[in-house]
Amino acid sequence: MIKEFHKVVSVDEAIETIENIRKELKIDRKIEEVHIKDALYRVLAEDVISNIDVPHFDRAAMDGFAVIAKDTFYADEERPVELELLGYIKAGDTNLYEISEGKTYGIATGAPLPKNANAVVMVEYADVRGNKVLIYRPVSPGENVTHAGSDIRAGELLLRKGTFITSREIALLSAIGRTRIKVYKKPKVAIISTGDEIISPGEKLVYGKLYDINSYSLYSRVLENGGIPDIVGVVKDDEREMEHVLNSVAEKDYDIILTSGGTSAGVGDLIYKVVERIGKIYVHGIAVKPGKPTVIGRIRDKLFVGLPGYPTSCLLIFDLLVAPVIRYLSGLPEREVKKIRARIATKIFSEKGRREFKFVHIVTGENSVSAYPVSTGSGAISTFSLADGYIVIPENVEMLHQDTEVDVYLLSEKLRPADLVIIGSHCIGVDILLNIMNKYMPTYAKVINVGSTSGLMAAKRFESDISGTHLIDEKTNEYNLPFIKLYGLEDKVYLIRGYGRMQGIVVKKGNPKNIKSLEDFLRDDVRIINRNKGSGTRVLLDLKLREIAERKGIDFKELVKNIKGYEIEAKTHSAVAAAVAMGKADAGLAIEAVARMYDLDFIPIKEEIYDFVIPKNKIDKKHVKKFIEILKSEEFKNELEKIPGFKILEDTGKIIHKPV
Amino acid sequence: MIKEFHKVVSVDEAIETIENIRKELKIDRKIEEVHIKDALYRVLAEDVISNIDVPHFDRAAMDGFAVIAKDTFYADEERPVELELLGYIKAGDTNLYEISEGKTYGIATGAPLPKNANAVVMVEYADVRGNKVLIYRPVSPGENVTHAGSDIRAGELLLRKGTFITSREIALLSAIGRTRIKVYKKPKVAIISTGDEIISPGEKLVYGKLYDINSYSLYSRVLENGGIPDIVGVVKDDEREMEHVLNSVAEKDYDIILTSGGTSAGVGDLIYKVVERIGKIYVHGIAVKPGKPTVIGRIRDKLFVGLPGYPTSCLLIFDLLVAPVIRYLSGLPEREVKKIRARIATKIFSEKGRREFKFVHIVTGENSVSAYPVSTGSGAISTFSLADGYIVIPENVEMLHQDTEVDVYLLSEKLRPADLVIIGSHCIGVDILLNIMNKYMPTYAKVINVGSTSGLMAAKRFESDISGTHLIDEKTNEYNLPFIKLYGLEDKVYLIRGYGRMQGIVVKKGNPKNIKSLEDFLRDDVRIINRNKGSGTRVLLDLKLREIAERKGIDFKELVKNIKGYEIEAKTHSAVAAAVAMGKADAGLAIEAVARMYDLDFIPIKEEIYDFVIPKNKIDKKHVKKFIEILKSEEFKNELEKIPGFKILEDTGKIIHKPV
Repeated sequence: MIKEFHKVVSVDEAIETIENIRKELKIDRKIEEVHIKDALYRVLAEDVISNIDVPHFDRAAMDGFAVIAKDTFYADEERPVELELLGYIKAGDTNLYEISEGKTYGIATGAPLPKNANAVVMVEYADVRGNKVLIYRPVSPGENVTHAGSDIRAGELLLRKGTFITSREIALLSAIGRTRIKVYKKPKVAIISTGDEIISPGEKLVYGKLYDINSYSLYSRVLENGGIPDIVGVVKDDEREMEHVLNSVAEKDYDIILTSGGTSAGVGDLIYKVVERIGKIYVHGIAVKPGKPTVIGRIRDKLFVGLPGYPTSCLLIFDLLVAPVIRYLSGLPEREVKKIRARIATKIFSEKGRREFKFVHIVTGENSVSAYPVSTGSGAISTFSLADGYIVIPENVEMLHQDTEVDVYLLSEKLRPADLVIIGSHCIGVDILLNIMNKYMPTYAKVINVGSTSGLMAAKRFESDISGTHLIDEKTNEYNLPFIKLYGLEDKVYLIRGYGRMQGIVVKKGNPKNIKSLEDFLRDDVRIINRNKGSGTRVLLDLKLREIAERKGIDFKELVKNIKGYEIEAKTHSAVAAAVAMGKADAGLAIEAVARMYDLDFIPIKEEIYDFVIPKNKIDKKHVKKFIEILKSEEFKNELEKIPGFKILEDTGKIIHKPV
Repeated sequence: MIKEFHKVVSVDEAIETIENIRKELKIDRKIEEVHIKDALYRVLAEDVISNIDVPHFDRAAMDGFAVIAKDTFYADEERPVELELLGYIKAGDTNLYEISEGKTYGIATGAPLPKNANAVVMVEYADVRGNKVLIYRPVSPGENVTHAGSDIRAGELLLRKGTFITSREIALLSAIGRTRIKVYKKPKVAIISTGDEIISPGEKLVYGKLYDINSYSLYSRVLENGGIPDIVGVVKDDEREMEHVLNSVAEKDYDIILTSGGTSAGVGDLIYKVVERIGKIYVHGIAVKPGKPTVIGRIRDKLFVGLPGYPTSCLLIFDLLVAPVIRYLSGLPEREVKKIRARIATKIFSEKGRREFKFVHIVTGENSVSAYPVSTGSGAISTFSLADGYIVIPENVEMLHQDTEVDVYLLSEKLRPADLVIIGSHCIGVDILLNIMNKYMPTYAKVINVGSTSGLMAAKRFESDISGTHLIDEKTNEYNLPFIKLYGLEDKVYLIRGYGRMQGIVVKKGNPKNIKSLEDFLRDDVRIINRNKGSGTRVLLDLKLREIAERKGIDFKELVKNIKGYEIEAKTHSAVAAAVAMGKADAGLAIEAVARMYDLDFIPIKEEIYDFVIPKNKIDKKHVKKFIEILKSEEFKNELEKIPGFKILEDTGKIIHKPV
């Protein structure tokens, strides 16, 4: 009896359930015979025992003369031994020849030794004189002879059942004349996509539809794991239609039926309902992220797995649950995923009780390998083009600290090299710049948003090509340059002037609290929303508040204690605007662009400078040069200044600091 | 102009010549279009730029209600906002809907947002009351919305030319609806085997013939490297026939023509002559071992490579010279061969001026990785089943010392695990035992012959499963056990009693010098042949000579100084017999079996004991147990005692020493 789960199960329970279903349904390895031409990368399903000796006769290993070794024992240069020449034996000659004492045959490499001969004198050490041969050197028995069975002996175990067949194994099979061998049959897998909004690639895209990703990605994933995939097609979110398709598929000779999508509440748990009716469900929901809405069951004698619809979740769950079954059936060993050690570059939170697979970028610096979480979620297929691999956060871990050493399981054997690695503060200006750049030079950019300070640290480790930063120095009021010194980057990086962004106070439309400057933040009736520590905006706010504290002759700490909401941190400009828009706060510091987005009023405070830090060993990279070129271009200026508060500066694109 | 070499060239010159021929003949990458179903493991020949936004409309990321975010800003549990419900939008709905302030649509995950909506309130935070919806929580603009182009933007470079296509890339291509893509065409390779003695696998084996190995091994090797192989067949060693076949092949649409065999002097340099006539030869002979007789040239517009006939040489030269061209044409990166570091377990000699590829076994012990050279040569295909990899000895190195650390390039991704690893003194008795064993239990055994002492060292490092040894202690006259103590193996190994082998003096037939005992070795008219230091036989001889020295009251060193030939060392029993048979020596110590083989006389001296040392962690291995079981069997006794001088002992198979 296979256990039926009425709650969300762990990944391990899900794997075990699949294995139990497979056994109960007697879905097992089958064997077929194939020609060795078609055997590459298949798995041997028999022990191959040689039924012949290789070579199967004693053969000459050199061109020369076949002799009875004893006849030559006293031969030397001075006193050659004279033998009677009976003829020549060529390679491939199938006649049986024979010699006796004092006689010899000329013999070619590979030719069979005549009877009684037990050695070959190399042609260099013999002279033919009519029907006589003079031998100038003795040979010992066996010399220059490849004995029958010396390579492979009849009865010898040549290849073991379970061997993965490469050209090396095919060479061995050829040697014993085997052309047909038993291998494990590839299991057949039916692939069904579901969703009213899904259309097949190749069809014309219309409003409201999305291309089916899962059919082809599962198709190739099944191939990669040694199965035979079959794309059944896209089925609408319709119980009758799904029931009809699943029933007809279940009648065919598939071993496994896969669906993707239709497992979430949104479509009324379509897959669950249909399979519950026409088959049996054992698992409905797995404690894993992504991939929770997974269904495991059976339809007739077929294993059924309902995979989640999101492409990355779908493939991840396939790898976890389905690939092992396919590999088992086709005889392949467990898939080995290449992994590398890395330190995570930022804190990562995870939900307790769920195993989480977190996609990450890998960035390698001079002496560092860092993993940065990919910000796109499991719904985005671009996660696959962005991520180099994933880390696995166990069920009992809620947080991974920055710099924790982790295993990163790579998505490809090789890291995907990016043309540009941009690590630092996020700015919409960078997105605009990259868009323009792509028009002129195809650029695969990794953009990793971790904030200004972490960006500088990445540049220091030579991990980034470009790090965007907007940090103001409290003492000098100067942007960015002082931090090059502060963090010890003076000999390591260039600082390139970027552009201006207007920072200011975001308030409700119509400014009901009549806020005019940052001093109003001290008012009893004003509640603010702050930014996170380390962000450029927070640094700016604190600088301005210190000025006020000094002017008023009070301690900075005392001052901020009186600001309502000072301790509440929002992580982005947008979040500040949202908080104000939703009435959670009356004011906050942010860039002008977000005030417009939320239809809020804006009081300009300071034009900040958003610059680019470039490690010295990256300055001559083609894509870095192009980046700077576009930064200076008219086209970029036009696009950038369409955004409220953004402005090209007099020295945009100029070198502000050179490594010394 | 491509340089024509009239001498043997270096490997690097050969590689360069092939590259020059390829360029001159304009054999280059070609492009074809394939369906993404057939694109797995191909190489992209275009930059794939997305022509659509993914998603290409703003879509709901959750089930809920599409709203204008601003409408919800002041909603909370106590004072829900009331909106007018206009209807429901399902995923895949292609109609255009629109809302205005105060209105909403119910919306399913994946469905397109109505015009003017900029957020989705999750279904959990709303209540439907007739045609009204109560909203209990505010949402910010963009909340629960997947924006058009947020996953992939139109114009974005998605995949770069040269990308190796896996399921991940196929997923990305599906996402933008691409079903057909440009990939590099696989180059076509014609494969011809030559030799009068060669027949195709599958044909009936007749005396004097050998199965063609190279056709199928090259076939699969071409496949592995991304080419399309075509087996043309086996061609006789006949110039006219070869000319005809090569001419007709050259007319077809192959890129590369390969032959194997027919390149050595033995067949009159068949390939060289024919290609010189109908095409052009640039290289004839490469300074590499194995693989010297290689021919590089062209026939019409085809690159031609005449590979050596020996199967291992053939594949090695293919890998060195041909695989890189095929990989280049099919767009694949250079093949990466997995390598591991190991210490070589024995001294290895190499010829200066040649690059040598030496096949080795890898044996891993508790803290050691050792490489032992494989004794079979390049003529033997079993080298492939025995070897785990090869080491490369550069042109300027003549010898590698024992324990030199080297890179071993693995033949497979994984080491081939052997059922039994036997390292130590070679004995024909072991071969007999393994033959019997294979009848009852298929056994893949690695037998590595390095002598008794090195065998004990291998056991000490837990590298071997079984080490054969026959070492006599000078003091006690006892075999093997004292050496367990001497080498510090007492707590590490079992010693299992093996069998007796008669050692004695080998003299010429009829014993013309009338030698009766080892004392005769001191005679002026007797010249002996000795064995190498460390061998069991040498130890025995020295023991006996010490006894004589003592009896005579002379120093051992003085004694041996008077023995003619004492300093001449033969490495095997056979070599001792051969030296005597050929008159290079009058006498030598060896086992009886070789005396019979060379038709020599034999004076028994001492029955020595050949035992088996088994590391303690190996004693329970299935194959080790079976080995001991057969050692004790009647069947083994019968077979063993057919060999002159071999004898089962009273305690054969008994444990002589247990680890303490």
